[in-house]
Amino acid sequence: MSADTRFRVLYRLLADSPEDARQRALGIALEQTVEIPGDIVPAGYISDEIVGQVETISHVAGKAYETVISFSPDSAGDEVIQLINVIFGNSSIQQNIRVTGFDPGPVIRDRFKGPRFGIKGVRARSGRARGGLISPVIKPQGSSVKQLADIAYRCTLGGADIIKDDHGLANQKMAPFAERVKAVSAAVADANAKTGGSALYFVNVTGHTGWPLDEAYQAKEAGAGGVLLMPGLMGFGVVQALARDPSFDLPIMTHPSFTGPYVLTPETGVSHALMYGMFQRLAGSDISVFPNVGGRFGFSVEECLSIASACRDMDGIGRPMMPSPGGGMSVERASDMVSMYGEDVVFLLGGSLLRAGDAIGDAVRAMRDAVDGLTAD
Amino acid sequence: MSADTRFRVLYRLLADSPEDARQRALGIALEQTVEIPGDIVPAGYISDEIVGQVETISHVAGKAYETVISFSPDSAGDEVIQLINVIFGNSSIQQNIRVTGFDPGPVIRDRFKGPRFGIKGVRARSGRARGGLISPVIKPQGSSVKQLADIAYRCTLGGADIIKDDHGLANQKMAPFAERVKAVSAAVADANAKTGGSALYFVNVTGHTGWPLDEAYQAKEAGAGGVLLMPGLMGFGVVQALARDPSFDLPIMTHPSFTGPYVLTPETGVSHALMYGMFQRLAGSDISVFPNVGGRFGFSVEECLSIASACRDMDGIGRPMMPSPGGGMSVERASDMVSMYGEDVVFLLGGSLLRAGDAIGDAVRAMRDAVDGLTAD
Repeated sequence: MSADTRFRVLYRLLADSPEDARQRALGIALEQTVEIPGDIVPAGYISDEIVGQVETISHVAGKAYETVISFSPDSAGDEVIQLINVIFGNSSIQQNIRVTGFDPGPVIRDRFKGPRFGIKGVRARSGRARGGLISPVIKPQGSSVKQLADIAYRCTLGGADIIKDDHGLANQKMAPFAERVKAVSAAVADANAKTGGSALYFVNVTGHTGWPLDEAYQAKEAGAGGVLLMPGLMGFGVVQALARDPSFDLPIMTHPSFTGPYVLTPETGVSHALMYGMFQRLAGSDISVFPNVGGRFGFSVEECLSIASACRDMDGIGRPMMPSPGGGMSVERASDMVSMYGEDVVFLLGGSLLRAGDAIGDAVRAMRDAVDGLTAD
Repeated sequence: MSADTRFRVLYRLLADSPEDARQRALGIALEQTVEIPGDIVPAGYISDEIVGQVETISHVAGKAYETVISFSPDSAGDEVIQLINVIFGNSSIQQNIRVTGFDPGPVIRDRFKGPRFGIKGVRARSGRARGGLISPVIKPQGSSVKQLADIAYRCTLGGADIIKDDHGLANQKMAPFAERVKAVSAAVADANAKTGGSALYFVNVTGHTGWPLDEAYQAKEAGAGGVLLMPGLMGFGVVQALARDPSFDLPIMTHPSFTGPYVLTPETGVSHALMYGMFQRLAGSDISVFPNVGGRFGFSVEECLSIASACRDMDGIGRPMMPSPGGGMSVERASDMVSMYGEDVVFLLGGSLLRAGDAIGDAVRAMRDAVDGLTAD
């Protein structure tokens, strides 16, 4: 490939023959751009630049083929929504096409700056220079603001780096958004004052006011240390808008809710690395949560490592970001998890932590010690 | 079931045994609400009200089971994002669980008003009291504002009810949003003045300014007759925010881009009727676009009819809305399509319409006549 300006997408597809594979690839190239039959594409700029160009088609095995199609940055503009629309909007509705790779090329790389904070920035804000970060989740839904704030307080005293809202905390009457954010922020600040630490409270923002950006700002005003967003339910545009907003200036954590169907079947959707790594980073998330191996979800070691790698790849878009495996972490498994993920990782501690009751701070401390004991000097 | 306040979700799941099915159902009930192990759920309000309740489990065939789980409206609050989060957020990431039904119950039905316009409202605004609506799409991406406006003008003269932006028109330099919206709105208004009609121009809104609501208002100011939104890329919250905003007052059309993986495999995701019918209507869309049978996508007649039925069901949430099958429509097929969908439908006319070149208005007129000729007096 020449050092041109186009971005490239790798698709895996099933086809009945090499000719069928070629027709399917040409179909994607049209569908994702002009969405008109090939024989009536206007000559000139549209046919030469805008229409996707099938660069390679190769046979993998059986009915499986891979094709690289290049697209013009002009198609995407500078919006992550439109970029993903070009990568896989309508073709996502075709059977047996899966996106397995993405090369942004120089222009998209320049337009999409990615995470504002990334690994270094999150470490600086949380005061954790070395080793894996520990992030207990405050829950369950249905608890009062006071109960959630109490859990956050205890976890912060126990050595948490990040206090994360459960993604099921929205603006329900049991713990309304504004009240919850103020009380939990204050609780974390109080505990930080005692420990001398700087644990960050990440507020789940869902947009009950009509626009998530407003709530993100409300959270910031109330003393939040970051926001939690769910791109599967809200789109990646919200992540991009906040990551680009110069006055927002808080790290962003993204949660995988409602994204499962994209990755669960091998012949449709997108790869794990794309959904939980590249797309997150492209949009500007600093910490990407995904279901860890060994938890309630069926991701494999290889899938989890592919996500972590996409999050941290030095050649990725913008700054490397933190992978955040959720579930499957315990004191007993800490050694395996640190071996698997290394240091630049945020370990989510989920519901089983609540088993400790009022001693939840001790449970966090035990995890903190386990991870720290495994961090090389 | 008693006439209680809860909403109910029907899940299809695969399990190895009746006991395994029961465990999976209980797992969903916890996962979608408290997200903590069942044995540490706090007694009282949380265990009695918040935790999902498995109401029935039945064996379908082989490994397939169906379960009805009820949830508290307190879990969802009044946000469509949080409601979908409760219906299927994390469980979407489990293998072999599919949402196949949704019964809102009285409280959710009261909180979610659905479409502002619905079928009657769209008919009133577009001046089409009877028969299927015709909606040509202006494209291709890469065209200038002048070219797009010219196509819109000709199609309006030809008898289009709705002029729809291609979903690939965002804010690219070839046809920047503000300029495009003004020029196309003016072209449609000019043609309306000639025909005495009231064709509506639906503007594709993607949120390049950081927030789609701003752009929707810009579109309205410029004379747009409606907006086109892509919930697969932007979430359903944007649809809800605009449908609820009393001062916005334009109909909303939704496009299926990037939603394919939810429906393509029978054992994961959600049913076609839910994705392109119930969820759209719940959020407040007035017209739901989906890939028609016989076009480039593989939806079956049964799947398309299930979508149309969910859109128009008199017992659904709020007002019945317009199904809008895209692709697969031609003068030759008009009779079949009208037989299949009846009158309350918006037929999208896609890329092949451009084959007519400058005579595109005649092509629209031919379709108009074909559909009108089939409308019962």
